Amino acid sequence: MTSTRRFPAPVSALALARAIDAGNLTPATAIERSIAAIEAHDALLGAFVATDFDAARAAAATATGPLAGIALGVKDIIDTHDLPTAYGSEIYAGHRPAADAPVVALARRAGSTVIGKTATTEFAYLQPTVTRNPVKPDHTPGGSSSGSAAAVGAGLIPFALGTQTGGSVIRPAAFCGIAGFKPSFRLIPTVGMKCFSWSLDTIGLFAAGIEDIGFCATALIGRPLRVDGRDPGAPRIGVARTHLWDEASHDMRAALETGARKAAQAGATVVDLEMPAVFAEAFAAHRVLQDFQAAQAFAFEVDHHRGRLSEILREALDHGASITPEAYDLARRTSRQARLALKDLFAEVDVILTPSTPGAAPEGLASTGAPIFNKLWTLMGTPCVNVPGLTGGGGLPLGLQIVAPFGRDLRALEAARFLEKALGA
Amino acid sequence: MTSTRRFPAPVSALALARAIDAGNLTPATAIERSIAAIEAHDALLGAFVATDFDAARAAAATATGPLAGIALGVKDIIDTHDLPTAYGSEIYAGHRPAADAPVVALARRAGSTVIGKTATTEFAYLQPTVTRNPVKPDHTPGGSSSGSAAAVGAGLIPFALGTQTGGSVIRPAAFCGIAGFKPSFRLIPTVGMKCFSWSLDTIGLFAAGIEDIGFCATALIGRPLRVDGRDPGAPRIGVARTHLWDEASHDMRAALETGARKAAQAGATVVDLEMPAVFAEAFAAHRVLQDFQAAQAFAFEVDHHRGRLSEILREALDHGASITPEAYDLARRTSRQARLALKDLFAEVDVILTPSTPGAAPEGLASTGAPIFNKLWTLMGTPCVNVPGLTGGGGLPLGLQIVAPFGRDLRALEAARFLEKALGA
Repeated sequence: MTSTRRFPAPVSALALARAIDAGNLTPATAIERSIAAIEAHDALLGAFVATDFDAARAAAATATGPLAGIALGVKDIIDTHDLPTAYGSEIYAGHRPAADAPVVALARRAGSTVIGKTATTEFAYLQPTVTRNPVKPDHTPGGSSSGSAAAVGAGLIPFALGTQTGGSVIRPAAFCGIAGFKPSFRLIPTVGMKCFSWSLDTIGLFAAGIEDIGFCATALIGRPLRVDGRDPGAPRIGVARTHLWDEASHDMRAALETGARKAAQAGATVVDLEMPAVFAEAFAAHRVLQDFQAAQAFAFEVDHHRGRLSEILREALDHGASITPEAYDLARRTSRQARLALKDLFAEVDVILTPSTPGAAPEGLASTGAPIFNKLWTLMGTPCVNVPGLTGGGGLPLGLQIVAPFGRDLRALEAARFLEKALGA
Repeated sequence: MTSTRRFPAPVSALALARAIDAGNLTPATAIERSIAAIEAHDALLGAFVATDFDAARAAAATATGPLAGIALGVKDIIDTHDLPTAYGSEIYAGHRPAADAPVVALARRAGSTVIGKTATTEFAYLQPTVTRNPVKPDHTPGGSSSGSAAAVGAGLIPFALGTQTGGSVIRPAAFCGIAGFKPSFRLIPTVGMKCFSWSLDTIGLFAAGIEDIGFCATALIGRPLRVDGRDPGAPRIGVARTHLWDEASHDMRAALETGARKAAQAGATVVDLEMPAVFAEAFAAHRVLQDFQAAQAFAFEVDHHRGRLSEILREALDHGASITPEAYDLARRTSRQARLALKDLFAEVDVILTPSTPGAAPEGLASTGAPIFNKLWTLMGTPCVNVPGLTGGGGLPLGLQIVAPFGRDLRALEAARFLEKALGA
């Protein structure tokens, strides 16, 4: 059941930055390592769709700032002015945006080196990429941020940007055995990201561990989100099995119980949460909002390039076009009600613990897996963190998800770090 | 004091559509009229920055749908795939977006013909364009949707798209003596519009009168927003002088009293509203949100093209960069509190009546005027309508603004139509 790992282990961004700070490593050398790892392994992994190593070397040579020497992979749904941006679609093959998305500009300003664009499913929806799982290459890495998660999971780069509209950050992070962070809605600007749903699209981060996420997020947006070198205390954790518990695999159910038990052993207060029915309604509302908005967001592509869209995307866009404004408005009201109900839930606990995915990464590359344990939280706009550390029977990673109230991103990362430590203990 | 008008009167989109429906006019002929008017008058007016009349003729020849024969001007802050889109900045001179913004694709789908791009201030901020006021060419048309409002006001086109982040739809509509509609936040997707502030940017419409706005909005987004041929009844109107009443000109104060009196004479219940202090705080919060977000949204332009930004924009972006996340979060909380207080205000009245601007269009083209009577409502996300019909001492238009609760766009248009009729009676 165990597999011989074909790729290097994930690389800690924080460890690299400390080595650079201490004078034991130069930014240029750190970037060379990533270039060498990509050259050695990406032919099999398939995480990158565009790279420019000469430009990366030039940028690294003069890099300053907290992320100097940190090689960054940018999901190819996000605009870059110096690398082609195809949004995972042949319609935009070779497209050269006029500007960097703000998140990319901010990442460069913090000193990171954009080493390449990472594979995204078509317009960050469900049509898979060729990317493989870094732990077991015959399994999916998840999607839609397939390349970003795989590249960090395979140790090619220490930091990557992704996006989540359904479950596209937390799911691939879980499948690839790394930390993933979907911040509060609009904590990071989505400007310059190809829009799928303006109420749901969220930019997220991938890194080796939770401390790395906190370090990179702080450098990126200038908010105090670091959780290294601190002991934030034991959180009150509510375990949410949700109405989809029956969809979780045996392994995932066991993993959630393990996570709850180890967190309690480490000192956390752990209680079971009853989720009111409005959350099941909100789960259903997610698709209404997403597809209705996508049908508008892709009006140009539908009218000019319908034949070049995948069947699965065409179906979603046709579904969206069939939704009435009344049904859409009802879904928005349901989502507001669920947000209010969530406030009540958080009166009792600091964070929620719930599966990141129904189970480990499915075999084959024909599907990127199911976002069913993510869509509700994307709709709620709450910060979510995938905590790595557990493994299922097949040797594949299983991720647990920490959810905190909207705007409590530091609390989410602190609790995630607490859990990560407890799982490793 | 009176001026000889140099431009044709505004053209009703609804009247054109009815003539086409009745077989008295072809879409091609209607578009030819707009082309001829632009050729005759735009050299003086300066409303258009890009046109392609051959493409417009070709589109009109096969146009179907409710807006067939309606020439549309698109503010040059919004992407078009077949016309250059420069966002009012030399940085993007000649820029060719890869796709139409969804709102443009939807407008084409409804049958309208994109006849050209209209002048916008630099990135829809305050640096003026060369556009002139259609009523008095030595006055500003207002901004930032200068070209869209002027082109409709000068009778060159019956329909135009604009955007509002502060007061960029309602203000130019008022200055140019036409109807302007800033819908509820995100009723119309802002995807493909150059982002200034993702919490504030709103796409809006310009047309000759309120019935034309309702007709065009319905065709554009498929919601029932028509107010022609109906008698929606007399609204309960709350008159909001706001904490900025001292900034209103003598003419504008008289205009507001005239509007209130005529509405009451037509059967409306008119009461004075006391605005709690939180609204003055929210007014101040608008700038914090706007500048903080703009500093991120323009990170690429600041880092790569700082010298090509106007001084007034650089100052706003530098101000935004100096705002702490704490101050930004506080502004967001203030704005949520004001939204709650607004619900209380609307418990007593159907709509709010307030000035569209401090007064008539200022003389000269060095400033586009002040958005002080608009910023609060943009922040609140409420539908706003500029109602034309009154004139100040200098012969220039004065606009009154109808504001309805979030999501009550039809109510806003109904009350605006009621007031428009009352002013004309």
